[in-house]
Amino acid sequence: MGKVITFGEVMLRFNPEGFMRIAQVQKFEATLAGSESNVSVSLANFGVETSYVTKVPSHEVGNIVLTEMRRFGVNTDYIIRGGNRLGIFYLEKGASQRPSKVIYDRAGSSFAMSKASEYDWDAIFSDAVWFHFSAITPALSDELAEACLFAAKKAKSLGMTVSCDINYRSQLWSKEKAGQVMSKIMPYVDICINPDIFGIDFDYSNGMPTHEEYHEVARKHAEKFGFKKVSFSLRESFSADRNIYSSMIYDATTDRSVFSKEYDIHIVDRVGGGDCFVSGLIYAYLNNFSDKEAIEFSTAASCLKHSVEHDFAMSSVDEVNALMNGDATGRIKR
Amino acid sequence: MGKVITFGEVMLRFNPEGFMRIAQVQKFEATLAGSESNVSVSLANFGVETSYVTKVPSHEVGNIVLTEMRRFGVNTDYIIRGGNRLGIFYLEKGASQRPSKVIYDRAGSSFAMSKASEYDWDAIFSDAVWFHFSAITPALSDELAEACLFAAKKAKSLGMTVSCDINYRSQLWSKEKAGQVMSKIMPYVDICINPDIFGIDFDYSNGMPTHEEYHEVARKHAEKFGFKKVSFSLRESFSADRNIYSSMIYDATTDRSVFSKEYDIHIVDRVGGGDCFVSGLIYAYLNNFSDKEAIEFSTAASCLKHSVEHDFAMSSVDEVNALMNGDATGRIKR
Amino acid sequence: MGKVITFGEVMLRFNPEGFMRIAQVQKFEATLAGSESNVSVSLANFGVETSYVTKVPSHEVGNIVLTEMRRFGVNTDYIIRGGNRLGIFYLEKGASQRPSKVIYDRAGSSFAMSKASEYDWDAIFSDAVWFHFSAITPALSDELAEACLFAAKKAKSLGMTVSCDINYRSQLWSKEKAGQVMSKIMPYVDICINPDIFGIDFDYSNGMPTHEEYHEVARKHAEKFGFKKVSFSLRESFSADRNIYSSMIYDATTDRSVFSKEYDIHIVDRVGGGDCFVSGLIYAYLNNFSDKEAIEFSTAASCLKHSVEHDFAMSSVDEVNALMNGDATGRIKR
Amino acid sequence: MGKVITFGEVMLRFNPEGFMRIAQVQKFEATLAGSESNVSVSLANFGVETSYVTKVPSHEVGNIVLTEMRRFGVNTDYIIRGGNRLGIFYLEKGASQRPSKVIYDRAGSSFAMSKASEYDWDAIFSDAVWFHFSAITPALSDELAEACLFAAKKAKSLGMTVSCDINYRSQLWSKEKAGQVMSKIMPYVDICINPDIFGIDFDYSNGMPTHEEYHEVARKHAEKFGFKKVSFSLRESFSADRNIYSSMIYDATTDRSVFSKEYDIHIVDRVGGGDCFVSGLIYAYLNNFSDKEAIEFSTAASCLKHSVEHDFAMSSVDEVNALMNGDATGRIKR
Amino acid sequence: MGKVITFGEVMLRFNPEGFMRIAQVQKFEATLAGSESNVSVSLANFGVETSYVTKVPSHEVGNIVLTEMRRFGVNTDYIIRGGNRLGIFYLEKGASQRPSKVIYDRAGSSFAMSKASEYDWDAIFSDAVWFHFSAITPALSDELAEACLFAAKKAKSLGMTVSCDINYRSQLWSKEKAGQVMSKIMPYVDICINPDIFGIDFDYSNGMPTHEEYHEVARKHAEKFGFKKVSFSLRESFSADRNIYSSMIYDATTDRSVFSKEYDIHIVDRVGGGDCFVSGLIYAYLNNFSDKEAIEFSTAASCLKHSVEHDFAMSSVDEVNALMNGDATGRIKR
Amino acid sequence: MGKVITFGEVMLRFNPEGFMRIAQVQKFEATLAGSESNVSVSLANFGVETSYVTKVPSHEVGNIVLTEMRRFGVNTDYIIRGGNRLGIFYLEKGASQRPSKVIYDRAGSSFAMSKASEYDWDAIFSDAVWFHFSAITPALSDELAEACLFAAKKAKSLGMTVSCDINYRSQLWSKEKAGQVMSKIMPYVDICINPDIFGIDFDYSNGMPTHEEYHEVARKHAEKFGFKKVSFSLRESFSADRNIYSSMIYDATTDRSVFSKEYDIHIVDRVGGGDCFVSGLIYAYLNNFSDKEAIEFSTAASCLKHSVEHDFAMSSVDEVNALMNGDATGRIKR
Repeated sequence: MGKVITFGEVMLRFNPEGFMRIAQVQKFEATLAGSESNVSVSLANFGVETSYVTKVPSHEVGNIVLTEMRRFGVNTDYIIRGGNRLGIFYLEKGASQRPSKVIYDRAGSSFAMSKASEYDWDAIFSDAVWFHFSAITPALSDELAEACLFAAKKAKSLGMTVSCDINYRSQLWSKEKAGQVMSKIMPYVDICINPDIFGIDFDYSNGMPTHEEYHEVARKHAEKFGFKKVSFSLRESFSADRNIYSSMIYDATTDRSVFSKEYDIHIVDRVGGGDCFVSGLIYAYLNNFSDKEAIEFSTAASCLKHSVEHDFAMSSVDEVNALMNGDATGRIKR
Repeated sequence: MGKVITFGEVMLRFNPEGFMRIAQVQKFEATLAGSESNVSVSLANFGVETSYVTKVPSHEVGNIVLTEMRRFGVNTDYIIRGGNRLGIFYLEKGASQRPSKVIYDRAGSSFAMSKASEYDWDAIFSDAVWFHFSAITPALSDELAEACLFAAKKAKSLGMTVSCDINYRSQLWSKEKAGQVMSKIMPYVDICINPDIFGIDFDYSNGMPTHEEYHEVARKHAEKFGFKKVSFSLRESFSADRNIYSSMIYDATTDRSVFSKEYDIHIVDRVGGGDCFVSGLIYAYLNNFSDKEAIEFSTAASCLKHSVEHDFAMSSVDEVNALMNGDATGRIKR
Repeated sequence: MGKVITFGEVMLRFNPEGFMRIAQVQKFEATLAGSESNVSVSLANFGVETSYVTKVPSHEVGNIVLTEMRRFGVNTDYIIRGGNRLGIFYLEKGASQRPSKVIYDRAGSSFAMSKASEYDWDAIFSDAVWFHFSAITPALSDELAEACLFAAKKAKSLGMTVSCDINYRSQLWSKEKAGQVMSKIMPYVDICINPDIFGIDFDYSNGMPTHEEYHEVARKHAEKFGFKKVSFSLRESFSADRNIYSSMIYDATTDRSVFSKEYDIHIVDRVGGGDCFVSGLIYAYLNNFSDKEAIEFSTAASCLKHSVEHDFAMSSVDEVNALMNGDATGRIKR
Repeated sequence: MGKVITFGEVMLRFNPEGFMRIAQVQKFEATLAGSESNVSVSLANFGVETSYVTKVPSHEVGNIVLTEMRRFGVNTDYIIRGGNRLGIFYLEKGASQRPSKVIYDRAGSSFAMSKASEYDWDAIFSDAVWFHFSAITPALSDELAEACLFAAKKAKSLGMTVSCDINYRSQLWSKEKAGQVMSKIMPYVDICINPDIFGIDFDYSNGMPTHEEYHEVARKHAEKFGFKKVSFSLRESFSADRNIYSSMIYDATTDRSVFSKEYDIHIVDRVGGGDCFVSGLIYAYLNNFSDKEAIEFSTAASCLKHSVEHDFAMSSVDEVNALMNGDATGRIKR
Repeated sequence: MGKVITFGEVMLRFNPEGFMRIAQVQKFEATLAGSESNVSVSLANFGVETSYVTKVPSHEVGNIVLTEMRRFGVNTDYIIRGGNRLGIFYLEKGASQRPSKVIYDRAGSSFAMSKASEYDWDAIFSDAVWFHFSAITPALSDELAEACLFAAKKAKSLGMTVSCDINYRSQLWSKEKAGQVMSKIMPYVDICINPDIFGIDFDYSNGMPTHEEYHEVARKHAEKFGFKKVSFSLRESFSADRNIYSSMIYDATTDRSVFSKEYDIHIVDRVGGGDCFVSGLIYAYLNNFSDKEAIEFSTAASCLKHSVEHDFAMSSVDEVNALMNGDATGRIKR
Repeated sequence: MGKVITFGEVMLRFNPEGFMRIAQVQKFEATLAGSESNVSVSLANFGVETSYVTKVPSHEVGNIVLTEMRRFGVNTDYIIRGGNRLGIFYLEKGASQRPSKVIYDRAGSSFAMSKASEYDWDAIFSDAVWFHFSAITPALSDELAEACLFAAKKAKSLGMTVSCDINYRSQLWSKEKAGQVMSKIMPYVDICINPDIFGIDFDYSNGMPTHEEYHEVARKHAEKFGFKKVSFSLRESFSADRNIYSSMIYDATTDRSVFSKEYDIHIVDRVGGGDCFVSGLIYAYLNNFSDKEAIEFSTAASCLKHSVEHDFAMSSVDEVNALMNGDATGRIKR
């Protein structure tokens, strides 16, 4: 199928076990987490060849990134070693009316301090057909914004597909800054997921927007930047452990939007759900799925991620297909 | 009340803790699991004298079967020691839309390789009033099918009650093979639970069958094999962690069916729920409950099992009665 | 704001992890639990200066009370050391239709055996503005009933506010005995929570009582004992893990009752929910909240407690305000 | 071989995992512990029929005693149910120069409050050939001292062997009180282990006593009370995790003492080592071992106990024989 | 440097945590273990390109082999998927005088049932310079003996180095059978480790053999089969947790033996120590170390393995060099 | 006795459980660690009033510092809240010949970025009699070096005792830089521990230096800077889990050195051993111990710390006295 390249930061995620609060524990689970690494791992689970590009320190904690990515079948040849630290964050999982809480400690990481010139895109993109990144990467530094712009341009010029998940993080930058920076990169992006930083907003005053409104907002984004496709997730959050989840994709060529089934989800771990959705889209379009098939596959994949602990989605194509084709009953196979 | 004999295979069940997937862990919970051992343990918890018959290896892993069954008060005098291995299986507990998964590794176990001639039914059945087995036992080998046939015949001839839980396992045999083999044993069975291998099928095309249809299907099975009673569980599976559960029993003498209350269950561990139901029926009829009382007791017992980790039901008669008599509110007693 | 004094027994609570039953485990979580200690910890989390008064043994297990209370910012200067033991209890957490179970082993504790004369209320009440206790304290011994009476009188005479949570425990005394003993202390109480031992009862025959009936019952209690305010919690228990929870407060001066929002709660740990509610009321009235504000704050605080493991509520004022002001969606903050 | 009866108190032992101190943990391992229950479990592991006599509460925590004793094959038919509590103790395991620490919380237990008249020795002693108790039992109450005296007399009159492990506990009584009470029971004892309360003391001023002195002290005890055999353990404690351990037995008929091999032990858990030694002696004399064989078997058994976590020894006769016959190299068998 | 191929069985190793016995636990650590997989993982940690050849089932438990080998950087391209099961074994770690215990349950595994014809040695050996296997592989079946013979011959003919670790397992075959089968393969082996099945035995009657005797026995083996080098480990086992360990290598060309330093080891986990030693030898000779350097490197590597839990050695070349060059003090680096 | 002030950085220490390596785990223990915080906690355990001065972030992870210090009785009134992060480090505990490994990730912490002007020494030193810091604090920044100089001067001028533990960390600065910076502060220090950065070095060429040499080196340091006392620890490291440990103190007034007993230690956790030694010295001199008493008390305290997990010493004065007065046998107290 050709290789998918992802580019971004991965951190060590420290979370108390179960529903314990940070103040209650003296032990943390430590797993990898990062938007683009999540996408690559999920793609590898789908059998897609993928290479993850980042920079991590050369000590034993940096090694974890290599061992874990390799474990799930992600190519690590273009991970640069050096710098001072692997970013971390603390995650306290919410329950019922108590929201989850994230405390970032990522400043000064090897990746955030890396230079645009360290990444050899000619080598990285050999044999590659798709380039994906999230707007978190440009948010980390001007150098990384420059690297994303350069890479997206080059990928585009090589005929690769470029996708970008906006994934807005208010702890990293303002919507204004985000809009400014990302506007320069958007012209080189084919598929944009969850754009909400460009001043084209939904009206939530009557609750969830209508399908028509999703269509309109997607269309406007596509018009503005020339996206081929724009996708939104539709999440109704009833509590920290129950969400109703679906998604939509707009195709600019046909000016049509398709919406997925809705899933009523009892959440085990919600983090990484969006990244898994993106991996589903990439898998789908690499395999020439129709928009309807693509959105159902991606949404089912993301739904399954919500039932899995930690950031990484652990589902195979068969498992996603089984859910997508209707078996949501959770019956034991034996 | 007299002793209840159960006959079957017990395995070591390896499951990741909580909702972790097999690919995520380096530690497994290891507990005993097996249809008939589950029935015996639950009976012992109800205060019924019971003896469990099987064959396990003579090493320390085989010892676990003796220590655990004794711990819960099950007689182990007729457990044969020898052979090569204790069967195992891996269980990955599902959540939300992700189904539970079972990987069996049971071939070549001491029990599966045992000979019909190894079991001394004269000794085993002394002081016994009830013989129970599931169709999993005959599925394991021709020798064990022969052993079941022999034991059922002998039990019948001694005036004991014989019950059989069909418990169809597609990983062990086809419905055709199962139907053939079990048809020979059925004439010696008094109470049959969940028969679904004899070509008398429900019509699920309009969702759950009606009560009338349950009655009809049960009646047809009773007619065909001369069962005194036929019982079905009614399970609507909304997700891996939510089921609506009830059950029914058909009495051939009166040609009447009674249905239990329905329970809306938030599942902790669903495995062993059917075995606990069977133990409830045996307890009920040993104590001359009416069909209505029997089906409510058994269903309440099974409902409680769903709230308990691992295969073994851990409820006392008092606890089942409390639920059966209406306290499903889960209020703390203090 | 002035210091809040609480007076009562704290125990070591032993519970199996997760949903395991006592018969299944060889390991217990051990945390502190006790109505008044819970109130003090929650108050300290709200930034209120509070001192907890009790008696615990002088050995390492008694030390736990000091270290843990200090950890959460509760003053321990008036904790007396001596006597023979720290009371304990075993808690088995329920799930779905299986209720939680509490086995007390608290007799003969250092606190229960302490003498009224051991407590130096002059010193304890210096700088204090509020005295709180639950009816569990007088239930433990005649000496402690005497101590409560003496302390309530003195607090009243010093112009402090006195609150009492009736918290009826059938394992400690009968409603008759409770009514008799508590009737003597009630005249010195300003705010009474959940009085249900004085023969003024609700009529549950039509399910949950109406708001009018809550108002009436509260009013009658206020009239009988001269309470300034009477508060009730309204809990509909659907199962061990789902409750609908709200509360009300009656003000005797205005003869008006206000009711809080209702929360549909997926329970992590329900124990300590009532104590957290009380801490909310104390915080609210110390800060001159209106009844409406007070009841919403207290109910939101208690709602959050249900999502936290163990007895101690771990919420800050900001977290309670966020929920109280409408964000019950459990969305991640990042 | 005939049944061995043991009589005493069993407690729930709470210990932090590993080498953690009580002040550091919020989780405790909870296992059964008690001198006589330990002896019975070890005997059952040696294949000896044994019945343990005690009294435990009728709730779920009391149930643990039955399930655990049954699990290891100990008969529980004569365990009385009732009373208020199961005694507990906290154990902090030492390391290097830091000693282990025990905090008892056993007062008022069902056993300690039981009456001599509750035990039906006629029934208990049917088919029994040996009666064993430790001096901890008489230390708990006058009633239990009376029960021991009565039981020892009756056992003696029935021709059973009576053994007593002095096991002096300074937290329960003084040496004077112990000497007084036990002197009355000693005439009915055949084998006495570690007598050190009768004023016949070793001289430790030059370090460990000589073999001659052990012989003399044993002889004097045998003369005073008419013991057939007297046994001492010889333990040099270098640190909390290293002991050199051996033992001796004196035979009054031949007036000869034999001493065992010495073991240099890296301790995993030292508690229960003495009880396991006693079980070895009982096993040995039931099987007509010579004194030399008996002391080597018992010492090897006790040595192995030191390598096993918790109070219960888990060794088979084969394992003890392997060590006794010289394989102390710890090589893997594969 | 060129690729190293290893060929053999890997199993899931189930062990209780710490020093717990199998009879005490309901939870097992589950990690990969197998002589050749251990060698490959250690080589990969040394930076050597290595490919591990085996056959594992196609389900999730088989997947573990791929994910774990990949995680440590071992190539898995030639792992065949199929067959019925992944072999397992139970390991109970010994302590002090209590030996470790291994219970195998490996019969019928995908690898043991695989056919010689399934392995495509032409493809496997492309770019390879070294072939390693242990005598455990031929012990599993005639087909696998044939496969080893074929592969060794082919490797030899391609100019690769062939090494074989005899690793005698009495639970798999007798020394006679082992000697017969292996004698046919030995002519194609360059480096043989721990040969002890060919009737050329040490005389242990005076304790550990002398250096001269090691030299002689090695020389005789080399003469008999034409080995270039023969290596023995010298292990004095004082207890399950203390060994004194060193090793030697004999070079046939020079007829000289060199012996390593001795290490006095406090054992964390001894399993895999021999495999790590082998990986050290392979690394050393791939890098043209002298015999003295080779034996010191390999012995230091193996020494470090004894301090690491589970089968896999986790040491880098730098860590081995640090120990080999004299820093055995265990001081913290900070 | 008057308050002891300590000033420095505290970090979250992440270590795998037991002897696992970083590459093997997905869970870390997280406890506080820092030279001065360790000293304060140990002092509080000795009953000394102590206040710890530092700066930590205002979020939940920063809160841990307050809750944990309070828990152990340390005053936290002068801990400043603000800045970006709490420093962390990863600790891999060594075993046998494998050394422990520390990976710091402390740059940019709230404390390291704090300004000298943020600390209000007038307020901090009110009621204080002793000021202690380690050279790690000045190593973190010029601002903190300035703060230490200022604080030491002021403490001296107030008549307080000033102690400094050199605690050289090569990962933070060179010996040259350390010598330069610290030389300016030393004139205000009364008691200096382990000075090894001022060019007055030991000669290790013949192994451990002699007592005479320790005396000489201490004397030279005292002469150079005017210290009242100089102390060194004497540690022979045989492996990661066995050290022989003692210490000495030199008194400048009398020009005499005294040396402590030697302890042969089986290490549970060695980190924090030096800090505990310092806390012992401070306790001793606050209580007017002689040098001999002081050095024995401090060394015994440090010895006990080696048997306790994590950085914090957990010993009471009674426990230290018991060891100091000769009971190093590790016998159980019961």
